[in-house]
Amino acid sequence: MSTLKGKLMQVGQNEGAREEARVKVTVVGVGQVGMACAFSILQSGIADDVTLMDVMEDKLKGEVLDLQHGSLFLKTSKIRAAKDYSDTAESKLIVITAGVRQRQGESRLALVKRNVEVFKHIIPALAKHSPSALILVVSNPVDILSYVTWKLSGFPQERVIGSGTNLDSARFRFLMGEKLQIHPSSVHGYIIGEHGDSSVPVWSGANVAGVNLQTLISELGADQGSDNWAEVHQAVIKSAYEVIKLKGYTSWAIGLSVSSLVQALLKNLHTVHPVSTLVKGMHGIEGEVFLSLPCVLGWSGVCGVLNLPLKEAETKGLQQSAHVLRDILKDLNL
Amino acid sequence: MSTLKGKLMQVGQNEGAREEARVKVTVVGVGQVGMACAFSILQSGIADDVTLMDVMEDKLKGEVLDLQHGSLFLKTSKIRAAKDYSDTAESKLIVITAGVRQRQGESRLALVKRNVEVFKHIIPALAKHSPSALILVVSNPVDILSYVTWKLSGFPQERVIGSGTNLDSARFRFLMGEKLQIHPSSVHGYIIGEHGDSSVPVWSGANVAGVNLQTLISELGADQGSDNWAEVHQAVIKSAYEVIKLKGYTSWAIGLSVSSLVQALLKNLHTVHPVSTLVKGMHGIEGEVFLSLPCVLGWSGVCGVLNLPLKEAETKGLQQSAHVLRDILKDLNL
Amino acid sequence: MSTLKGKLMQVGQNEGAREEARVKVTVVGVGQVGMACAFSILQSGIADDVTLMDVMEDKLKGEVLDLQHGSLFLKTSKIRAAKDYSDTAESKLIVITAGVRQRQGESRLALVKRNVEVFKHIIPALAKHSPSALILVVSNPVDILSYVTWKLSGFPQERVIGSGTNLDSARFRFLMGEKLQIHPSSVHGYIIGEHGDSSVPVWSGANVAGVNLQTLISELGADQGSDNWAEVHQAVIKSAYEVIKLKGYTSWAIGLSVSSLVQALLKNLHTVHPVSTLVKGMHGIEGEVFLSLPCVLGWSGVCGVLNLPLKEAETKGLQQSAHVLRDILKDLNL
Amino acid sequence: MSTLKGKLMQVGQNEGAREEARVKVTVVGVGQVGMACAFSILQSGIADDVTLMDVMEDKLKGEVLDLQHGSLFLKTSKIRAAKDYSDTAESKLIVITAGVRQRQGESRLALVKRNVEVFKHIIPALAKHSPSALILVVSNPVDILSYVTWKLSGFPQERVIGSGTNLDSARFRFLMGEKLQIHPSSVHGYIIGEHGDSSVPVWSGANVAGVNLQTLISELGADQGSDNWAEVHQAVIKSAYEVIKLKGYTSWAIGLSVSSLVQALLKNLHTVHPVSTLVKGMHGIEGEVFLSLPCVLGWSGVCGVLNLPLKEAETKGLQQSAHVLRDILKDLNL
Repeated sequence: MSTLKGKLMQVGQNEGAREEARVKVTVVGVGQVGMACAFSILQSGIADDVTLMDVMEDKLKGEVLDLQHGSLFLKTSKIRAAKDYSDTAESKLIVITAGVRQRQGESRLALVKRNVEVFKHIIPALAKHSPSALILVVSNPVDILSYVTWKLSGFPQERVIGSGTNLDSARFRFLMGEKLQIHPSSVHGYIIGEHGDSSVPVWSGANVAGVNLQTLISELGADQGSDNWAEVHQAVIKSAYEVIKLKGYTSWAIGLSVSSLVQALLKNLHTVHPVSTLVKGMHGIEGEVFLSLPCVLGWSGVCGVLNLPLKEAETKGLQQSAHVLRDILKDLNL
Repeated sequence: MSTLKGKLMQVGQNEGAREEARVKVTVVGVGQVGMACAFSILQSGIADDVTLMDVMEDKLKGEVLDLQHGSLFLKTSKIRAAKDYSDTAESKLIVITAGVRQRQGESRLALVKRNVEVFKHIIPALAKHSPSALILVVSNPVDILSYVTWKLSGFPQERVIGSGTNLDSARFRFLMGEKLQIHPSSVHGYIIGEHGDSSVPVWSGANVAGVNLQTLISELGADQGSDNWAEVHQAVIKSAYEVIKLKGYTSWAIGLSVSSLVQALLKNLHTVHPVSTLVKGMHGIEGEVFLSLPCVLGWSGVCGVLNLPLKEAETKGLQQSAHVLRDILKDLNL
Repeated sequence: MSTLKGKLMQVGQNEGAREEARVKVTVVGVGQVGMACAFSILQSGIADDVTLMDVMEDKLKGEVLDLQHGSLFLKTSKIRAAKDYSDTAESKLIVITAGVRQRQGESRLALVKRNVEVFKHIIPALAKHSPSALILVVSNPVDILSYVTWKLSGFPQERVIGSGTNLDSARFRFLMGEKLQIHPSSVHGYIIGEHGDSSVPVWSGANVAGVNLQTLISELGADQGSDNWAEVHQAVIKSAYEVIKLKGYTSWAIGLSVSSLVQALLKNLHTVHPVSTLVKGMHGIEGEVFLSLPCVLGWSGVCGVLNLPLKEAETKGLQQSAHVLRDILKDLNL
Repeated sequence: MSTLKGKLMQVGQNEGAREEARVKVTVVGVGQVGMACAFSILQSGIADDVTLMDVMEDKLKGEVLDLQHGSLFLKTSKIRAAKDYSDTAESKLIVITAGVRQRQGESRLALVKRNVEVFKHIIPALAKHSPSALILVVSNPVDILSYVTWKLSGFPQERVIGSGTNLDSARFRFLMGEKLQIHPSSVHGYIIGEHGDSSVPVWSGANVAGVNLQTLISELGADQGSDNWAEVHQAVIKSAYEVIKLKGYTSWAIGLSVSSLVQALLKNLHTVHPVSTLVKGMHGIEGEVFLSLPCVLGWSGVCGVLNLPLKEAETKGLQQSAHVLRDILKDLNL
């Protein structure tokens, strides 16, 4: 104890008798995505302890210092850099944003394999130090890496969640809302399946105030529909590419999207979000594969998966994604 | 499980594998003060589970229903009425607002004794079901009942906190701020000691941006000073009486004040608040008595008590309060 | 300027050059409903100036003092009591909770007429001092008094909004959510029409994640359905009666519900809420009458009214309410 | 209006009758600092309209898209890119983060001159389209560029504010808090004067709960004091350099710091913050120069400047900074 502290106050003998870190969140990876997640989580005030981890020591130290300098404006009592895995111990939730980037000319499968090697290092170590944590996987390809994380962690399926199409759906709702001049929180619609190009928009459920939009324009979402509604899903798919082309990476929207999931999980809200989960046995998918479906999220992780009444084409889209992903997963030898 | 739920979703087998109630707060007493506390805590979003308890069954049920009907607008997953003490189990923090009111012609000591009888019923039962909780006492006379709660709970001293002069100080800062046209959060000043008429304003520490107000007006707070600054402390003392005379009770300010303490405690903020704590050994006080001093609050409760450099008159005021309180406490035979 | 203020700081000559009260909200009526609204609005931090008004001078002064004492914990710079209508000037939004209570044996029409007399005093005076305000009517019977306010204010229809079935719908979603163990914010359903006993639940639009609940249980909401879903709407209707029987009045849920509407309006959110608006020309209603339909709310007030595809029985329910209300309105001689 | 919108809702004829953008904030510059400011402002929910502006068109478009994709999670109705100055019209507050970076071997004065050229383009144009806005300058050297902005805008002095030592003071309070294990919001201390190396820590006002830290350790802040307290100010000065060395730039803390100022200004809070303002006539400074002193901030901008009772060395430090800055300003020929 510093001299000044000793003069300033009388300290109880039992300090720390109750466990120190009540709601500890660890964010692995301090790139643009990891930092946007960490910053959004900090501003939401949901966590008491936000611990960052990365192999790039300087970058990690710099980011943590920068966040700590903002402590006056935050309601999070601890922000720190993990030097090793023991510093992540007893996390209640771990956000994984780590991963290598695609090399020029590298195949998708080769990229996946390199990322799996990274995950083989970090996931078992994280799981060992926080055996009852939830793990939220953000790294891409998120559906594959969520499955990998599930296998490597040995956690029950409901405690490994992929951020999946939560952001795709937010973009979908924003774009529909722009057309209708309604805030996206009042425009409902889900994109499910594989995060990215093969994602499936569930037009049949798109609604405002319970008014199914397809009852108003039957061809909604079809290729030749009026109002260019067909383009909305295409715009969603192009969104990430466009932002990356323009600014080099995506960060803010994924940060907010992840922070929203973290709140649902840690505050046990039982709200519904489209996230990547083990979908074996649903929609005719037989293999073990992670894909996004609307899930009820709470303190236990995935508390339930919604049974969407899909059209045949939608179901086929899902099954096709599942098939492609299984092929990749088989090659990973986990 | 309802039929519809079964059709709507697939539920994980392990639901509830992690403990259900993460941040449970119990509020005992659903009078105007208890409800203002409960409502402020709910709007702050700090708790996952807010449980209310009272012997008035109808009132309790009505208040809980009314709060539940607002669930759509809140981020608290559980709001419920405790039927018996077991429903309060595993609370992380218990707010006590219960107590009987003064009868016509009843002496203060008689009132205290009746409230002690009430506390003898509720405190041991609450402590038994939540052995590691913090207890925040709001019922009046708060300094006496905080001591009583400490004794009856058998809890370590740092886990029993009285709301004390936290509200008196907020009123003090508001009234100074009104004179200076500065928001109370930028006007610093503490009222310490006994909550109520005998409270002690620490004029020597009153400051804005570190500018000690007494260096500007030396007689600040003295009886004959200019600007009527002497009246500010009198106005603080009269505040509760005036509000009660005008509207019948006080509620909003105490609710906000308590909610602010609950956040400091549950989020482990280590912020400083004037609250009632065991002051034995400080400022020449030898007996076991609870009085308000600025305390560092965190997850462990009172993490430190500030050593205020008081003037002789201020110290004497504290000691006089301690003396009066000890006399009452001695008669309680705890 | 006080002596101390003069010594403490140098004040710019131009202070107040920009208009003082940026977001001023006036709440008329400081009963339990008015105060729960005012407190919820204050905790939401949406307003810079919250002005309260009531004819009960002592109660008004006491409530304002009590709120001001909590200023330290709030981000609203001004909380004040209006002595006369000029103190409400330039409000951006006015919440009306004033009104007389039903006397023993008094007919509903007699009650309405007495309240219309009250509104004849207050509405023109409020409208005169804040000619560009929005008016949000909460007093009951809300659909009649919203119409009365519209007529008496002379405001365009989109600037007079009744809180209507916003609370009924919140209760509906809470009760459905309880059955499904899903947070009400993820359970969608609207109650429309007349606030109270004649309200109309739109079962056809009730959904979770776009999954129409009637596609799962076709008889949902019908009298003989399984799971007692038919009882949900009955429970909504009984809610207010039950809370009033148990605690004497309703307050918290209506306060949160109103605060939610105030945020949508003042932050120009363009979110959708079921509120009472002029429905002439919709659903075959020919007369000038206010009833609740889902509306897009923003800075201009009601920015749009949703065209719900109703079933015949639902439309008839609406028309019947419109008919009954028109009969009452005709007798008011406005 | 889109076909679907027409079918979905009935739109009031008077939509937009009240002015559209109620609280519009423009952020100029979408580099790391500008984006951290914009994101913090968005998460605070203070603005209804956040408009970004930059000459780098692609980067600007990418950043705005990325923020818009997060709209679902935000309570800000408009996020947009300004194509030209007219799109910034009627801003209530403008945050300036634009500016060129130092070239290898470039003198400080040469850098300043290049930035002044940039400001000559943007400030008059911004001021013309938002003649009653507040301007908050964040670009460095902030004290010089705040003066330059004041001159170029023609605005009254209280409406041009430099972020100044607000962040330095936050770092100061964080570092002191770390030593004392107290949250920085309960550790009070100001760094004033020139932002950066020549800043002046006001040790005489450093306090916790009104307890002046120098009364506990008289040599506090002196070179040879115990506990290395002297190093705290050095650490503050080194902070920016260290973060830049480690991660390449600073962003999060300045973003939070700016967002905190924006809230004080736009919500008319009258809270006290150390920001750069015209200090002519204070502390013996005769020339027109901007330096940081604790200021009361509100809707009018700087509503008051605190008269700090400084020690001789502190006053000399301020005067020396003023002297150096005046020399630079003279050469700018504004």
